[in-house]
Order: sequence, then C-alpha cells, then structure tokens
Amino acid sequence: MKVAQAAGQLKAERRLGQKSVYFPGRPAVLSTFTVAGPMEGQGPLGSAFDTIIPDTYYGERCWEKTESKMLKEAITHCIQEAGASERDIDFMLTGDLLSQCIGGSFAARELAIPHLGIYSACASFGEGLILAAMALEGGFASHAVVAVSSHHDSAERQFRFPTELGVQRPPTAQWTATLAAAVLLGYPTSPYARPGPRVRLTGATIGEVIDIGIKDPYDMGTAMAPAACDTLATHFKDFGISPSHYDAIITGDLGAVGREIAVDLLESKGLAVRNRFEDCALLLYDRRRQGVQAGGSGTACSAGVFCAYLYRMMLEGRWRRILLAPTGSLHSPTSYKQGEAIPAVCHAVAFEVETGD
Amino acid sequence: MKVAQAAGQLKAERRLGQKSVYFPGRPAVLSTFTVAGPMEGQGPLGSAFDTIIPDTYYGERCWEKTESKMLKEAITHCIQEAGASERDIDFMLTGDLLSQCIGGSFAARELAIPHLGIYSACASFGEGLILAAMALEGGFASHAVVAVSSHHDSAERQFRFPTELGVQRPPTAQWTATLAAAVLLGYPTSPYARPGPRVRLTGATIGEVIDIGIKDPYDMGTAMAPAACDTLATHFKDFGISPSHYDAIITGDLGAVGREIAVDLLESKGLAVRNRFEDCALLLYDRRRQGVQAGGSGTACSAGVFCAYLYRMMLEGRWRRILLAPTGSLHSPTSYKQGEAIPAVCHAVAFEVETGD
Repeated sequence: MKVAQAAGQLKAERRLGQKSVYFPGRPAVLSTFTVAGPMEGQGPLGSAFDTIIPDTYYGERCWEKTESKMLKEAITHCIQEAGASERDIDFMLTGDLLSQCIGGSFAARELAIPHLGIYSACASFGEGLILAAMALEGGFASHAVVAVSSHHDSAERQFRFPTELGVQRPPTAQWTATLAAAVLLGYPTSPYARPGPRVRLTGATIGEVIDIGIKDPYDMGTAMAPAACDTLATHFKDFGISPSHYDAIITGDLGAVGREIAVDLLESKGLAVRNRFEDCALLLYDRRRQGVQAGGSGTACSAGVFCAYLYRMMLEGRWRRILLAPTGSLHSPTSYKQGEAIPAVCHAVAFEVETGD
Repeated sequence: MKVAQAAGQLKAERRLGQKSVYFPGRPAVLSTFTVAGPMEGQGPLGSAFDTIIPDTYYGERCWEKTESKMLKEAITHCIQEAGASERDIDFMLTGDLLSQCIGGSFAARELAIPHLGIYSACASFGEGLILAAMALEGGFASHAVVAVSSHHDSAERQFRFPTELGVQRPPTAQWTATLAAAVLLGYPTSPYARPGPRVRLTGATIGEVIDIGIKDPYDMGTAMAPAACDTLATHFKDFGISPSHYDAIITGDLGAVGREIAVDLLESKGLAVRNRFEDCALLLYDRRRQGVQAGGSGTACSAGVFCAYLYRMMLEGRWRRILLAPTGSLHSPTSYKQGEAIPAVCHAVAFEVETGD
C-alpha cells in the first residue's frame, strides 16, 4: 500500500490537466535515421536524409514490402548510429498506415527487439514518442526506439485509387511521403549518449479524436485542422505558456489548406502562432516544382522532417524550444465507402535543446 | 541532470532482462465491462457478460459500425460502473482488428477522452495493459482505460472470404469473437476504488515478433504457439519463477491446435505448465455445440474472457495469481495475398488478487 501511495504522489507531479504530462527526467534523442524515397530525395530536405532509395520498389516485388524494408533499415541503422545493438533496446514502438500495421510487424519479425504496434495514422510518431518517454521516465526502459513509415504507392492504392490509374488529384490533395524514420530515446547517462548538445523531451499533450464531418479523403488538411487546434490550445493552457514559449510550432501534415485553417482557429482564440508556425507537409516538398498539390502527408512525414531537419536545426542552435504536433486522419477505405466522415487526432511533443557536458 | 539520474535509478529497479518489467505500485483493475454478441451469449460464459446484443448488427447498417458501437458502450459503461466520468480518465488505449483500427478511432470520436490507438492484433489487450500500467506507475495518469473489440463478421470478410459466401472452415480454423471489453485501471487510493478484494497488475513481459513460416490464416494457432512459448519462457526466466508461481497460465487465442503445440514446446523446455494451462479461445465457446472448430479468436477474446471470467474467479478467491498472455497473428489480407507468412506476438501480464481494506 505504501508503494501505491508513493506512486500516487509521483503521479500528481507529472500530470497537467487531463491531457498533458511533463517529463522531469527529460529523455533525450540519442540518434536518428531516415530512409527516403527518390522524390523525397529531390525535395528541399534531400541532402539531409541519411539514405535515399534509388526507386520506389527498392528491390522488392511490391510496395508494402518496400515500406517494411525501409522501416527495418531505419531502425537498425538508428541503433547502429548510436553504437548500440538490438539487445540494448528494451522495446520499440512502430506505426504505419498499412492495414493491420504490417509495415511495422513485418519489420519487427527480423529484429530481436520487443515490439508494440501503435496507430494514430499520421500522428503515430507523436503517440510513440509520448509512450516511449512515459516508459523511460517510469523506469521501465533505458532505451526505446520509435519508428514509423509510409509509402506513397502503398498508401495511395489502399486509401484512394489504383496507383497505375493516375487519377487526377484536386488542389487540396496531399502526397503521402515515401519515407521511414527512427529515433532512439534514452538518457544522457546512457553509454550510447554522445557529448555535445542534446535534444530532450520535456512534455506532451495527448489528443482527443475530433470529427467535424469532412468526408473527402482528398482534403485531410481541413479534417485535421480542428484536432491540431484543440491539442495545441490545450497544450498552452495546461502548461500555462503562450505560443512564444516555443521558437517554432510545427504540425505534422496539415498542408497548405489545413495550415491556414489551424492558424486562423488558433489566432481567433487569441493565440499568436502565425509567425512561428510551420508544417512538415510544407517543408518536405517543393510544392510548385514537385506537383504535390497541398503538400506532403503520411505517418513518416513529421518523423522524417523531424529527424532530417528540425532535430538538426536544434542541435545547430537555430531553435532552442520547439513543439512538434503530428496530425492524423483516422479514416479507412472501408469507413470511407460506408459514407463515414474522417475523425482526426493530434498529439503534441515539446523538445528543448541543452548544451551537453 | 539530477532528475535524469534519479530517473535512471528508478529505471534499474523496474526492468528485468530486456523484455520484462514489474510494477511496484501494483495498479488495480477498478472496473470492467463487456458487450457480447448473441453467439458468445449462448456460450459457457454467456451469463457472465454484462450486455448481450440481440443480433450481429445491433441497429447499425454494417458490422464495422456495430463493432465500434459495442466498443464505445463497453468504455462508457466501464467508466460509469466505477462511478467515474469521461473527464476523470487521463487517456484510453484501444485496439481492434479492423484496417486502420477504425473500431477504436470511431468509438473515440464520441468520447471526451485522450486517445492512443494500439495494434498487436489479438494480443492488443496485453499491449494496452502494459502501456497503461507503465504510464500509471510513472505518474502520468491516475486513471486509464484499456478497451478492445472484435466482430466475427467484420473480421471474417476482411481476412478471409465474404461472410455471406459461407465458406467451409477447416478443423484448425478459429471463430473471431463478436465482443468488446474495457477495463479501468487506477490505484486503491482512487476515489473510484471500491473496498474489498482487488485484482492488481504486478509485472509483464513484452513479446518479440516471431514468424515460423505458417501461411494459412485458417491455422493461426500453429503460427502463434512459438511466440506464446517464447514470451512465457522469457517471463519465467526474467522473474526467476517456475510456472507453479501462478495458479493459472492463460493464453489469448491459441485454440485447440495452438494450445497443444505451446504446451508441448514449454514442457520440452522443462517448464511444467500442462496442469495449469488455459486458453481463452477454449473458454469462450462450447466447441462441439457451437461449431467453432479449434475455438475462438479475435482481439476481444482474451479481454472478454478476462473481464467476464478470470477477473471474477480471482475476486471470488479461486485463483490468487494468474498470468494472462494474449496472442496475436500480425498478418493482413494484403500480406496474405502477397504470399507472406503470419508473424505472431504474445505479451504476458501478471495479476494478483489482494484482500482489500
């Protein structure tokens, strides 16, 4: 009973409101790794990806297998990058868009690492970071990997039309990124932590599922913007901070349409976010040159942009504090055909860079 | 830095090997609720379910919506049962078998509770209990709900053949349960904890994904048995205990075929499990009378049997300690058609009943 009460006391310190938590021990990103598709390699972040695959098949017979292979390589290289081995990892959390999450499950069968699958669609990276940080802070893991993947061709044919059909895409459509990204989380006391500045997780807000009735899978930005607004507004309220606390607030994949709606919604609540608001969907591609319409999307959109760009900008001292808010559309091909709307979710994670020892 | 080191010290105390963790604060089950299908209501546990729906549609136009409705009702009634309200719940973890996990996402859009989706197929209940317990023990939640669902008709047409076709099922086939189950976890210090005996979570083992090359979705028991064996053997080793530590060891849905293989595998390793080994797939239905072939299956199979039967047997004093090990087949309709085998996973959770104050 004593132990339970001690746990109860601890608890009161790490919760802020119903939805937010903070991480007093500040788990750190020990390493990252990205495997990008050819088109992503030709985008503005092309030179920042660790690997760029030569074609969308990458030696496999079908795109689902390609995606799983990319995810597996992101995980193994991320672990190697830190100088660790599979047996050092207490568990990994993986997320992807494929039905029954086969991207992660089929990657996991080749790895000697305990596996937990997660699903918040394109917000899965946020969910994974939060769950991993809670486990690390609770003393249940010393090293955890969070890894996600998406593949344009496997997603497009699953959610919309056969890829070969080349269906015309409206201006609100977004381009699912062919990308896999992995991060290794641990503490600075880890033997795999390097000296120098470190990016650490300081807190998070878990989102509610919000459905405003948008039914068009070619307009996910509009469907997701209210969820992003809800989570971000809750975050500022729970932590008692204003948007200026962060050098940048970066949503996952709202795209050009959703970004404007989210900014307007937040500004209308008196939250001055406009001059520090970024969206990974708009950072990943050159919209005009690459024909991606409203921008990128996909589970790995926010994760890939974080690893290749945001994380490095922090290490280089451009930003001290950022709030990353991956967004997800929770529909399925079945729910769409049954006339259902698109519920959405957004999970926000706060990072802060610290000068190392 | 001090805080991080304190977290590091805490950490060392709650890990056992790479895969196992223990919960010193022993989170408790505060309430449970089940919503069962008509056939499940006619099975051996029929009288133990909280609600039995009159037909497999339950007023909806399609089975996916029925499943989501059942899950939502299980969650809301579970919370009500404890005397709590949605705003008391820090977050919920939901899992189901439907593509893009729409069972949980569409239930969540009607609830004012932060939502995290999980996927370990029919082992999701184990994954959810472990993640929720880690969050509670870390002080990140005071109340969390873990809820899962499955529906025979939505699963059958998704994974195998159109339900109306009435395809003949081989003797190794298992029957996906139409069932939703929710548990509310918290501490005895919660205002929603009742006096009397309580079932508490004491430890867990997170499984690795194991694939032995079985390709037949009508023989998931054989595909999952090695994963069950690996997780259970690791559990006994990590905790330094023999199977007799538990009054019962209960797998999720190995069925008649997988159960025998798992028991043989464990006995061949010198682990005497046979006389205390149960399987939820064999407890849920009367195999001969109900024509379910090798037994039940589905994400809610282990969860429903836990809530309706195992949990109550513990409260009534029949068992003091049990090890629940939900098992999951991680294939998808796409991976099957692409000629892939069925990777499997098993997560084990240890429960102990304590006499209350």
